[in-house]
Amino acid sequence: MSLPVDPTANLASLIRCASVTPAEGGALTALETMLKPLGFNVERPVFAEDGTPDIENLYARLPGNGPHLMFAGHTDVVPVGDEAAWTHPPFAAEIANGEMYGRGAVDMKGGIACFLAAVARHVEKHGRPKGSISLLITGDEEGPAINGTVKLLEWAAAKGEKWDASIVGEPTNPDALGDMIKIGRRGSLSGIVTVNGRQGHAAYPHLADNPARGIVTLLDALMAPAFDKGTGDFQPTNLEVTSIDIGNPATNVIAAKATAAFNIRFNDSWTVESLQAEIHNRLDRAAGRRKLRPGRKEPIDYEIVWRDRPSHVFLTRDDRLIETLSGSVKAVTGRTPGLSTSGGTSDARFIKDYCPVVEFGLVGQTMHMVDERAALADLETLTQIYERFLQDWFG
Amino acid sequence: MSLPVDPTANLASLIRCASVTPAEGGALTALETMLKPLGFNVERPVFAEDGTPDIENLYARLPGNGPHLMFAGHTDVVPVGDEAAWTHPPFAAEIANGEMYGRGAVDMKGGIACFLAAVARHVEKHGRPKGSISLLITGDEEGPAINGTVKLLEWAAAKGEKWDASIVGEPTNPDALGDMIKIGRRGSLSGIVTVNGRQGHAAYPHLADNPARGIVTLLDALMAPAFDKGTGDFQPTNLEVTSIDIGNPATNVIAAKATAAFNIRFNDSWTVESLQAEIHNRLDRAAGRRKLRPGRKEPIDYEIVWRDRPSHVFLTRDDRLIETLSGSVKAVTGRTPGLSTSGGTSDARFIKDYCPVVEFGLVGQTMHMVDERAALADLETLTQIYERFLQDWFG
Repeated sequence: MSLPVDPTANLASLIRCASVTPAEGGALTALETMLKPLGFNVERPVFAEDGTPDIENLYARLPGNGPHLMFAGHTDVVPVGDEAAWTHPPFAAEIANGEMYGRGAVDMKGGIACFLAAVARHVEKHGRPKGSISLLITGDEEGPAINGTVKLLEWAAAKGEKWDASIVGEPTNPDALGDMIKIGRRGSLSGIVTVNGRQGHAAYPHLADNPARGIVTLLDALMAPAFDKGTGDFQPTNLEVTSIDIGNPATNVIAAKATAAFNIRFNDSWTVESLQAEIHNRLDRAAGRRKLRPGRKEPIDYEIVWRDRPSHVFLTRDDRLIETLSGSVKAVTGRTPGLSTSGGTSDARFIKDYCPVVEFGLVGQTMHMVDERAALADLETLTQIYERFLQDWFG
Repeated sequence: MSLPVDPTANLASLIRCASVTPAEGGALTALETMLKPLGFNVERPVFAEDGTPDIENLYARLPGNGPHLMFAGHTDVVPVGDEAAWTHPPFAAEIANGEMYGRGAVDMKGGIACFLAAVARHVEKHGRPKGSISLLITGDEEGPAINGTVKLLEWAAAKGEKWDASIVGEPTNPDALGDMIKIGRRGSLSGIVTVNGRQGHAAYPHLADNPARGIVTLLDALMAPAFDKGTGDFQPTNLEVTSIDIGNPATNVIAAKATAAFNIRFNDSWTVESLQAEIHNRLDRAAGRRKLRPGRKEPIDYEIVWRDRPSHVFLTRDDRLIETLSGSVKAVTGRTPGLSTSGGTSDARFIKDYCPVVEFGLVGQTMHMVDERAALADLETLTQIYERFLQDWFG
């Protein structure tokens, strides 16, 4: 029985499955086919919730005595966009100029293909590792993420699964393989502020209360001053206003209401709670709830609604995990990767509640784009890095 | 042949015509019926323009040797709104507690009814005045105003009509009859500012350029400092932001574009041109076109579009017209009216290009509202004021 030692072949099998969220598209079956000969026990739980599509997931474990490493990722991919604009078809896994083209090539079927190849090579050379390896693979990372990693972790933990460390195989390298390991992520908090004014005629502003003035005042207070200067491990906290909306088409009418939406990416100077308190504080002060603003008889009438589930900030402090992975990158590429906490959120924010987690995968440049593709040389290098990590971590 | 000496009867005839813009609704015919016995020559030109409803208008002249007075107004009315909420039907002219109910009672069939009654009483007592009177009545004041007063003035002027003074019978009194004559109006200028940013992910703001930040910066510069402190004849110039729009529903996306609309009511410190230059100046400075803003590599990329046709500021300087009307108000009510330039625009802004113009009519409190109504006592008082004016002005 041949083992999946070739990352390029593994990736081709996965790309040929059109697994655009929420479709399984054959990708988990292809993965199962590769895992079985290695000795993994494979389960494919389906999670469902009213109002969201049912999602098929995969949990595979190679049993063994010793520490338990989890590799986490997803086989679902984002839509292809303008298919006519692709140089090579998005689900054909065609190779040109040393690169394999296909949706999911780097985000993140490529990471899975390399990890599989690394395990296969390890088993081929050394037999089963001195411990246990599991793959926790969702089909709902690019979608609403309701029936994916969160439920898969709960489901596995309820069965008694415990992990000692996790690697998420998302593309983490900005420019070249070896650039960056992610060892934490900023938190994310979103809100919508509504200012209630009083409608009226633009020629009689004293009879109205223009909410446009109120919302601009509040947004000024949200956008400055800076929340912090960053910390040793994290970038500065940053707030972006994502929308401002009044929607009044009439030239001569003062509107009744204005809303603004914002998103904050915050570092470990803050918790969700302390940041919410800071926002309330800025808004109350700017609205004149403490001390009336000049020219106003009453404070700006505003309310705030927190939106979506906030993501908590996290930083992984497992030195052995980080140093072993970092050392593997250095040994294979000759480069010392940056240890970063930048960028958006990932499923690592859920895994961190179960075990220390880091993220390392391919170069992300073409993710979500037309002509997403992975260099064959990178696939081989990443496989070698993962293989070296398995050897050293189970050591 | 009975003359229309009773303003209440005149108003009832007009209210019973459902002349919601653009419908003539019989209102001009009712008016013509009242004008004919007084000796007016009546014409009813219809104006048309692609994309707008055809509108019927009325121009009536009572010939005579001497100065020529124009009374201007409109018989069209705004929609009734929630008809079930009216205490009395909106087109029935029912009287209760000394008030006549009906759409247009004060805005401004009431003004027309009183002026007609004033002319009738003058003719009955003294015969034709020592001069000429004309009524310039449109059916398109509450609508787009394309086929109304502007064209009616051009049409009459092309026939050789010349006027020495004009009274617009719009409701000008805020609280009680005799409060206020309008002797000018502020100008009105509207624009839409668009900030072009660069779309991106909220977690990677350095790769994007958030237009929300740009639009708030530009709006701050538009809203302050104050444009002026007002002049002897006018309120301070005032800018209201009427809309701000981004329309981005995604929590984690920085939008590509933001727009804001504003309207300025300006006094005689400014012309349309000087005010546009000031706006450009404020925006250019705030955008960093003169000197880059801290933290920006390029100026905020914005453009401005001027919206609708601006209204020029005007102030009527005909002392005899103003003093005669003011004296008539004083003689009848015992009160000295304020001479004001406050409030919105009116058709007076078009008439001022042909002759000196002032505005005086009923109390405006119920205009455009459910249960619009005019006090019978006010109808009689306004008739007496107009009659006294005719006597003194033609005197």
